[in-house]
Amino acid sequence: MRLPDTFYTTVRARLNEALAEQELDGFLATAPADVAFLSGFFYIATERPVYLWMPRQGDPLLVIPRLDEEYAAQQGVRISTVSYFEYPGVVSAEETLALALSGRRTRRIGVSAGISVGTLEKLSRAVGGTRLVTTDAVARLRLCKFPEEIPLHEAAARICDEMLAAGRDLIAEALAAGTALPREDEIARHVIGYGTDRMYAEYDLVVYTTKLAGGLVYAGPNSALPHGLPTRRRIQPGDTLILSLGAAVASRFVESERTFVVGEPTAEQQRYHEADREAQQVGTEAMVVGRTCAEVNRTCLDVLRGHGLGDYIRHRQGHGIGLQNHEPPWVEDGDDTVLAPGMLLSSEPGVYVPGHAGYRISDTVLVTADGPRRLTGFPRDLESTIIEGVR
Amino acid sequence: MRLPDTFYTTVRARLNEALAEQELDGFLATAPADVAFLSGFFYIATERPVYLWMPRQGDPLLVIPRLDEEYAAQQGVRISTVSYFEYPGVVSAEETLALALSGRRTRRIGVSAGISVGTLEKLSRAVGGTRLVTTDAVARLRLCKFPEEIPLHEAAARICDEMLAAGRDLIAEALAAGTALPREDEIARHVIGYGTDRMYAEYDLVVYTTKLAGGLVYAGPNSALPHGLPTRRRIQPGDTLILSLGAAVASRFVESERTFVVGEPTAEQQRYHEADREAQQVGTEAMVVGRTCAEVNRTCLDVLRGHGLGDYIRHRQGHGIGLQNHEPPWVEDGDDTVLAPGMLLSSEPGVYVPGHAGYRISDTVLVTADGPRRLTGFPRDLESTIIEGVR
Repeated sequence: MRLPDTFYTTVRARLNEALAEQELDGFLATAPADVAFLSGFFYIATERPVYLWMPRQGDPLLVIPRLDEEYAAQQGVRISTVSYFEYPGVVSAEETLALALSGRRTRRIGVSAGISVGTLEKLSRAVGGTRLVTTDAVARLRLCKFPEEIPLHEAAARICDEMLAAGRDLIAEALAAGTALPREDEIARHVIGYGTDRMYAEYDLVVYTTKLAGGLVYAGPNSALPHGLPTRRRIQPGDTLILSLGAAVASRFVESERTFVVGEPTAEQQRYHEADREAQQVGTEAMVVGRTCAEVNRTCLDVLRGHGLGDYIRHRQGHGIGLQNHEPPWVEDGDDTVLAPGMLLSSEPGVYVPGHAGYRISDTVLVTADGPRRLTGFPRDLESTIIEGVR
Repeated sequence: MRLPDTFYTTVRARLNEALAEQELDGFLATAPADVAFLSGFFYIATERPVYLWMPRQGDPLLVIPRLDEEYAAQQGVRISTVSYFEYPGVVSAEETLALALSGRRTRRIGVSAGISVGTLEKLSRAVGGTRLVTTDAVARLRLCKFPEEIPLHEAAARICDEMLAAGRDLIAEALAAGTALPREDEIARHVIGYGTDRMYAEYDLVVYTTKLAGGLVYAGPNSALPHGLPTRRRIQPGDTLILSLGAAVASRFVESERTFVVGEPTAEQQRYHEADREAQQVGTEAMVVGRTCAEVNRTCLDVLRGHGLGDYIRHRQGHGIGLQNHEPPWVEDGDDTVLAPGMLLSSEPGVYVPGHAGYRISDTVLVTADGPRRLTGFPRDLESTIIEGVR
């Protein structure tokens, strides 16, 4: 799951341009996704700090806990590495970093605004004389995906679409066999297990920052709560069912979400499903270079409002996707980011009718000079998402 | 999974004492575990902020995104709640909070040092005139578990021990049947699925901050990497195998980790296993009120050093456990915290022999006035952790 060296070389060159502009001597990465992006080192985030020093001049340096040393080597990380023994440590991670940087030019160092106040204080004490300033240099670099990252997102999209099919088939098979339909938690376990298995089957050394595959599964009234967890509720004939699934290859995320109906849809289900599908279609087509996130979001949600469903909106159209499953930009009224080629966005308007059900359809969409391109492709229309015993 | 009201009343009273001492008008919780601890509201952490205002006088207030409103109600959260629509929002979460607090006494507010620099800046701008100061008031409250929390940890411990048995049985059954032994990733999926299922079977409304059940599974040379991920490597007769499992009920975590040997152990395996078991036994017995974390850690790891295994140590004896699977105090040389009744600690020394295997045995241990009490109870000795086809 390691990206080609060209990727890291290009990223470094682009980072250096930003550092020069901002008169920074280097960037100190402290978040797992930033470290993975800049170095290709993936690790389980704990209280043990990992610091990646990316200087404008000279060699990068990775500071990791002793227990990750062999793991970093196994991943083929080529950056020279020093380790501290443990957290909190008699000699801390910050002191280890400061010692390793002594003699290097570190007058003014950039850090991400996501760094904690406590960590910033510890670093400031350790690297006395150095000024630590927040910068969006790396966040901006991650806004538009690099060509080498796209195949990973595409691979994750294929797996994510297959997870949807696996969930649908589990129910269809129970219907055909006339056995009890599965529960929400059983479906969740089945599809997440399916996605994880596929990941292990396809890749030699599986790595991630947060997870390989995940998902929310809710049906009937439960599906009206966008962030509720799966329950033990058994699927019922007539249910509306949302499978809200995600997968990541080398921590390059996608999401693929569909709303199914078990059996013949009622007029009410048809109305909500069709309105959401239309909003998703219009909103996805609006993801065009040069428009702002706020404009696209408005175009999308206006379709729902036009259908008189404004009271059932609970969230924005979408969000950026990359090394995190949610990251900037935000396809929302409050984000004026202008869409550019390489941005990867979820397009996932939802309709949530309390006591009845929720409807959400999501694709992962790549913004290109030629227009929006969906990486996820599971059918969206109601006809294709009806689950019946005979397929 | 909701704790009794007495718990929240007691916590509030204790928090108020700390706030009075530190001359703070209230505490603003911003981390999922702090919010869950103080209010009983569990949510999926995303970029959408959740703010819980706990004033020294007057009523608490919860600020949440609109999409979580029905979910909070479903969880029986009794704190009055205001919502903002979305992130980043035309009206932000911080502005919503500031408006809701206007007219209240907020001269000096405590926040945790875990808050990000970016969030602190946004809050400072929104609540102009208020001083935000970092405090360990809530972190200190979480150091010693409350009586109402212990049964949740005990319930998680039972499930976690059962997960170990499920993993062992999966291999034993394959040995007995003469079929191919499972792969590391298959075992991981099996035991995590088992734990998740048990959670859903026992509780009506399952909630968590990060996960219900999780684990690392590695055998043979892979097990020498403490934080490596499961791979597709198939278990082999003769393997050393670590099952490093965790579970949480209402986000009250435990871990239960054992080292198994598949078939008859070699003299080498016996030596490492027995040394680790002895270190774990001695280290656990050392978890006595009044001793420091550093002393306990030294006592434990000295057993390994005494066996000439100092070069194979990769980490400390353990860490605190509670609403997070890793939290203070740290059973390590650099932590002088004095053990007190109610502290819950992992005791998990490890021996990692590159190219051969790793050995780690972990229990979740409650410090009490009567001495250390293990919540996890799966057998630790080598004889009991040999996996054979006939049981």
